[in-house]
Amino acid sequence: MSKTKLASESLTTMTEMIFPNDTNTLGNLMGGNLMRMMDVVGAICAQKHSNRIVVTASVDNVSFKESIPLGSVVTLQAKVTRAFSSSMEVVIDVWAENIPAQERVSTNKAFFTFVAVDQSGRPIDVPQLITETEEEKALYDGALRRRQLRLVLAGRMQPSEAKELRSLFEV
Amino acid sequence: MSKTKLASESLTTMTEMIFPNDTNTLGNLMGGNLMRMMDVVGAICAQKHSNRIVVTASVDNVSFKESIPLGSVVTLQAKVTRAFSSSMEVVIDVWAENIPAQERVSTNKAFFTFVAVDQSGRPIDVPQLITETEEEKALYDGALRRRQLRLVLAGRMQPSEAKELRSLFEV
Amino acid sequence: MSKTKLASESLTTMTEMIFPNDTNTLGNLMGGNLMRMMDVVGAICAQKHSNRIVVTASVDNVSFKESIPLGSVVTLQAKVTRAFSSSMEVVIDVWAENIPAQERVSTNKAFFTFVAVDQSGRPIDVPQLITETEEEKALYDGALRRRQLRLVLAGRMQPSEAKELRSLFEV
Amino acid sequence: MSKTKLASESLTTMTEMIFPNDTNTLGNLMGGNLMRMMDVVGAICAQKHSNRIVVTASVDNVSFKESIPLGSVVTLQAKVTRAFSSSMEVVIDVWAENIPAQERVSTNKAFFTFVAVDQSGRPIDVPQLITETEEEKALYDGALRRRQLRLVLAGRMQPSEAKELRSLFEV
Amino acid sequence: MSKTKLASESLTTMTEMIFPNDTNTLGNLMGGNLMRMMDVVGAICAQKHSNRIVVTASVDNVSFKESIPLGSVVTLQAKVTRAFSSSMEVVIDVWAENIPAQERVSTNKAFFTFVAVDQSGRPIDVPQLITETEEEKALYDGALRRRQLRLVLAGRMQPSEAKELRSLFEV
Amino acid sequence: MSKTKLASESLTTMTEMIFPNDTNTLGNLMGGNLMRMMDVVGAICAQKHSNRIVVTASVDNVSFKESIPLGSVVTLQAKVTRAFSSSMEVVIDVWAENIPAQERVSTNKAFFTFVAVDQSGRPIDVPQLITETEEEKALYDGALRRRQLRLVLAGRMQPSEAKELRSLFEV
Repeated sequence: MSKTKLASESLTTMTEMIFPNDTNTLGNLMGGNLMRMMDVVGAICAQKHSNRIVVTASVDNVSFKESIPLGSVVTLQAKVTRAFSSSMEVVIDVWAENIPAQERVSTNKAFFTFVAVDQSGRPIDVPQLITETEEEKALYDGALRRRQLRLVLAGRMQPSEAKELRSLFEV
Repeated sequence: MSKTKLASESLTTMTEMIFPNDTNTLGNLMGGNLMRMMDVVGAICAQKHSNRIVVTASVDNVSFKESIPLGSVVTLQAKVTRAFSSSMEVVIDVWAENIPAQERVSTNKAFFTFVAVDQSGRPIDVPQLITETEEEKALYDGALRRRQLRLVLAGRMQPSEAKELRSLFEV
Repeated sequence: MSKTKLASESLTTMTEMIFPNDTNTLGNLMGGNLMRMMDVVGAICAQKHSNRIVVTASVDNVSFKESIPLGSVVTLQAKVTRAFSSSMEVVIDVWAENIPAQERVSTNKAFFTFVAVDQSGRPIDVPQLITETEEEKALYDGALRRRQLRLVLAGRMQPSEAKELRSLFEV
Repeated sequence: MSKTKLASESLTTMTEMIFPNDTNTLGNLMGGNLMRMMDVVGAICAQKHSNRIVVTASVDNVSFKESIPLGSVVTLQAKVTRAFSSSMEVVIDVWAENIPAQERVSTNKAFFTFVAVDQSGRPIDVPQLITETEEEKALYDGALRRRQLRLVLAGRMQPSEAKELRSLFEV
Repeated sequence: MSKTKLASESLTTMTEMIFPNDTNTLGNLMGGNLMRMMDVVGAICAQKHSNRIVVTASVDNVSFKESIPLGSVVTLQAKVTRAFSSSMEVVIDVWAENIPAQERVSTNKAFFTFVAVDQSGRPIDVPQLITETEEEKALYDGALRRRQLRLVLAGRMQPSEAKELRSLFEV
Repeated sequence: MSKTKLASESLTTMTEMIFPNDTNTLGNLMGGNLMRMMDVVGAICAQKHSNRIVVTASVDNVSFKESIPLGSVVTLQAKVTRAFSSSMEVVIDVWAENIPAQERVSTNKAFFTFVAVDQSGRPIDVPQLITETEEEKALYDGALRRRQLRLVLAGRMQPSEAKELRSLFEV
């Protein structure tokens, strides 16, 4: 297995049409269905980076600011931002389009973490990530801070140990 | 509409069996499908508190530490922890059981936020929450800190303004 | 395996939201979809009593007196009423709620029978049921009569042998 | 609308393949999924007799004596047996086939009752049924007894009034 | 295995109701969902002729000339037209009905080709087809021409070798 | 509405993971399910070209030469090849990947035709297509021949009138 891989090699695009069963009483896409799509596109992206079976380890805060009506076309783009031994952070950007109305809005940006596993489900190392663009570098740098937040929220790290994260809150 | 409501009035229990299409290549429940179930049980819970149509506003960090195999029975319990004008934070606890093996594990605890809306989708005020048990009071108190974290992560509050949250990271 | 179990130990609650694909041309839940939900909640309930894989053996007469519109929340509660060697009768109560309108109606009461089986599908004995409340005792007593009706309807018992059942029709 | 219709005009045949999500832990069709298919074929059959929208009113006792494995082909045949003002009793016969093994078994026979309704859901009269074959006549004759049993079980008729039904249990 | 089989032995009828999730923004059945139904009924039909597992090899030109609205009843009839060593051509006729309006239209006629395979997926010979009616004979005769068109379109036959097909285009 | 549009403006990419319910008895993707995905990606692509609601008018011959096992990742790419008043021909290329095994195969190439319609379902004109690359030009040129074949197969054109098509079969 190669020891490193480019961020761009994991780029994955998914396009979905919103069908009646995906919607709530107001005729808009339910948040849980969008998270299900994000999980699938993120898992394919992490598979591309690791060439392994992957399982979802965590989902960071996702906010839903736009309603996405029945018949919309949703585009999801996923790219690995950083690899930590067996885990990979993936950023997922979502846009919704009403194509006949020529309206397109950015609806969500979220970070999912996946772990590469072997056939018996044990974690296994993945290639390190090589960044090329400014945007990839910025996402790579922020990944450490987001990881500390994840560990603090999961009760597996003391806030006092989360150096990168603490710096955000200091005057 | 009554001005206040008990936390216990919103308690909602959902029980689901894991079917083949819910699983990944290893035969375990996919994270995205569990999030879809959480979204439905949370929305019903927030409906009970507000007697309104509700939409998902955000999902806090969720971590998936246990694999849940095909044929498992998943139980989800949701309860409103605090109300803020038109929004409600809901805590969702998830357990998975292999009933023939008499094994039951706690698999997830997550916070979802829902907003009550009228028929045209405009936010509308909800009753204030009254807590009774120690656990409900602790969740109520923590809700302010989690809300600040959500606002900071969504770029709608400066870290320096997030007082309750900052106290966590100070020596 | 324990020789006896309380009726209350098998209590199972399922909450579902009615989505577009569950409905008929009038926008109401189709009877067949409700029966599918009843089968799942009943099977989980019978699993809890027996700690075994279970298969559906029969469904007693179910009547659908209320229409349940799209967006309703359906609550199903299942409890074992009596065990007969490898089979268990389960009572399932169903309520439908229009939460924004604060309307809740009892829509169905049905009896399903499940058989506990081993991995190769052969029937296997289950614990006897211990009743505690008056309602559980009444359901336990009626189970024999319902069982005779089931056997008569399946052509496996002569009406003349169905003593408990016959007493219903005698002047 | 014609005042009478032949039983044979309502004959409806449905053929389905059993997919993974239809099955339980043992890889066999779940009873609830078969009932969902029965409800659809029965509703189409009752539509053909009445040329109306129909809703499911009740399902009589159904027993599941054969397991139907993944990949089986299930054939359902439905025919109206008798009409009562706005309601129609439909008999549904089910066979399961393992075509490569050239095995075909009769798995279920069940009676569903549907009510014809107008666009606002109000019951509306349907044509009377004309029987032609011996089998159709036998089903027509039995329909009255089954209807009395349904009414007794739903608590809408006293056992003492159910004449046809009582005759079954008398020495 | 018998060396020959009648066309009529493979006749397969499927009846489906159109549910919300099958429809597009205009409330009509999506073409792709109809093709999915055709594939299932055709596969069952080819299984009946061959008593084997079958896989879809190709679909000929399908045109969608009628819109099929939500709530319609769709009837599909499939019959083998000719067998070539391990492959079978199946003709599928589709009708859509608005039963309350007493309207029934022929919507599609399509040819699917299936290949019989053993458990490891290798092609395996099937019985020759015996035709009885005039319609079956005409379909049998046309099968050779359609097969040549398929091979030409798949780049596996030169147009100049497709004798039966060429005769169509010659003055 | 602009009178012309580039072929590249309609490019649409869809990525899907193959789940258990998409597969047949051999654990491979069923042809009908792949056609359903093709129909969705093609419809989104035709929407992008026309900024209109579109309906499927026809599907040309599709052959399935590769089996696509459970867990595979399927990528579909669609692009408009030519516009004819209200109809658009779309070419759809499909690849299947077993990412852990680093295997990727081209599985299908198909032509779908969509018609742009207004809200009441009436056909409406679409922009003419501008090609840029050699591949786009070749697809544009072939579109006329494929259209004649479609019309001949649908019985709406005499073979003798199909000039471009006839030239293929002439010595």
